[in-house]
Amino acid sequence: VSDNPRFLPIVQPPRDAAAPPVFGRIAIVGLGLIGGSIALAARERWPSSLVIGVDDKDVLERAMRRHAVDVGADDPIVAAEADLVILAAPVAQNIELLGALAEHVRGSAVVTDVGSTKRSTLAAAAVLPARLTFVGGHPLGGAARQGIDHARSDLFRGRPWLFTPTGATPPETLDRLFLFASALGAEPRAIDPVEHDRIAARISHLPQLAASALMRVIGDEVGEEGLALSGRGLADTTRLASSPAGIWGDICATNEDEIGAALDALIDELQRVRGRLTERQAVEELFDAANEWKARLARIRGDQG
Amino acid sequence: VSDNPRFLPIVQPPRDAAAPPVFGRIAIVGLGLIGGSIALAARERWPSSLVIGVDDKDVLERAMRRHAVDVGADDPIVAAEADLVILAAPVAQNIELLGALAEHVRGSAVVTDVGSTKRSTLAAAAVLPARLTFVGGHPLGGAARQGIDHARSDLFRGRPWLFTPTGATPPETLDRLFLFASALGAEPRAIDPVEHDRIAARISHLPQLAASALMRVIGDEVGEEGLALSGRGLADTTRLASSPAGIWGDICATNEDEIGAALDALIDELQRVRGRLTERQAVEELFDAANEWKARLARIRGDQG
Repeated sequence: VSDNPRFLPIVQPPRDAAAPPVFGRIAIVGLGLIGGSIALAARERWPSSLVIGVDDKDVLERAMRRHAVDVGADDPIVAAEADLVILAAPVAQNIELLGALAEHVRGSAVVTDVGSTKRSTLAAAAVLPARLTFVGGHPLGGAARQGIDHARSDLFRGRPWLFTPTGATPPETLDRLFLFASALGAEPRAIDPVEHDRIAARISHLPQLAASALMRVIGDEVGEEGLALSGRGLADTTRLASSPAGIWGDICATNEDEIGAALDALIDELQRVRGRLTERQAVEELFDAANEWKARLARIRGDQG
Repeated sequence: VSDNPRFLPIVQPPRDAAAPPVFGRIAIVGLGLIGGSIALAARERWPSSLVIGVDDKDVLERAMRRHAVDVGADDPIVAAEADLVILAAPVAQNIELLGALAEHVRGSAVVTDVGSTKRSTLAAAAVLPARLTFVGGHPLGGAARQGIDHARSDLFRGRPWLFTPTGATPPETLDRLFLFASALGAEPRAIDPVEHDRIAARISHLPQLAASALMRVIGDEVGEEGLALSGRGLADTTRLASSPAGIWGDICATNEDEIGAALDALIDELQRVRGRLTERQAVEELFDAANEWKARLARIRGDQG
């Protein structure tokens, strides 16, 4: 791994069911959509590994009913013997957990997280003792509905799983995490944490805030009577507006500079066209540029757009 | 019809195939997605009516191949005997056509249009002689792909078809247009033209411009390498960014005040959250408000959101 890793080639996983598990005791703190899906996928892939879940009692009960975890508790002390710890709570909770992890986990372990922002969690991991090796992670699987009830073992299949190693990351630790992510069907890649937060602010956080702002403004201005006249265009453009508030306070707070810059760019573009609505050429130029990027996005995603 | 009509009750159409056509000679100027779909639906519904198409020769050829029109020409003179004229070109062309219509159409006729903005076309219709009765129209059927090749006779089924009568509109003319739209499967409603443009700016024009601006900004800032990491959220939020530039110059120019006000409201909301990214409460308040409107929109549309 270079000092400033970007996109590394995809590792082809060994699909041999007899292969020994990459980790023997996997503790997952936070059993929402992502944590729950990792739990389900890990149990499916390595029946001999122990999957330890940490969450509130009612979430644990639902996780147990779905056979997502072998062991569960509402206290991270249950992760004492883990050799992999996955922090899958909202970012601020992950950061808080990092501060207490050395008390709970007794031996050597790899520690990763699944948060949508990476710099602040990485900085917080500096408190960990040498026996706990932290590498930030961000699986890009997502779904319209959150929570353990919508967790699926195939959530990560064919989707990127980003890791943010630093110059201090032991190459063999990154290798093991790549093997782990590959075995769950994902395409692991390394990316610089700063670059990660810059890109995530644009491809994920900006569309989310734009969709929420759009839905709020339109709802407030036209009410249900107006919404009744809308079509699939509005429904699609605002699909993300159903995202629950829960995790977004942390994401915005821990990526404020990049999200702010991305919002500024969008606001600038909206103000530019707002000042030229009667100039056909300005409007058409915006549509032409958007058309071209949309076609490239559709080509990349292999869909019709 | 009152002087300031809003939403009138839906007329239940007589679904009797033996019913006489509402109009006997229907001229459609502009055979794109909407004009072409009206042509296909009218021929299907009333085999005895004559459907006259006006467009460029290559579009006409494709319309003929799809059996969308009985008669076609690239000159509106072919509409001489029409008793219904539907202007289905971009708004500026419709306005230009209104100025020349009295030369082309010889007898009495009802004239309507299908444009996304209504005030400017209505104002331009003031030049028509008394024998040509104009009522603005806006069928809300839409599809991801434009043009006669994607026209479908069921495009309007179950979708609102708005008409914008004024105090001068003869009630029997509005009745005939309601019957016409109902027979094509749509749900006709009357709406004040000013209110139409206000609502259309919010539920249609604003999401379109936001999606296009978002796609352009994100593409410019992260490039294909960044887009490759995006998920369904970005794809959905920017679905409208594939809309062709063609008709949007006219829409923006003829609804500039309302679109400008809608853009201002969105920009204000984005600026508000931009200034409070580190305040959990401000972020969560936006998400909660958006969640609520999104749930109401999903309920109205009868879908999962």
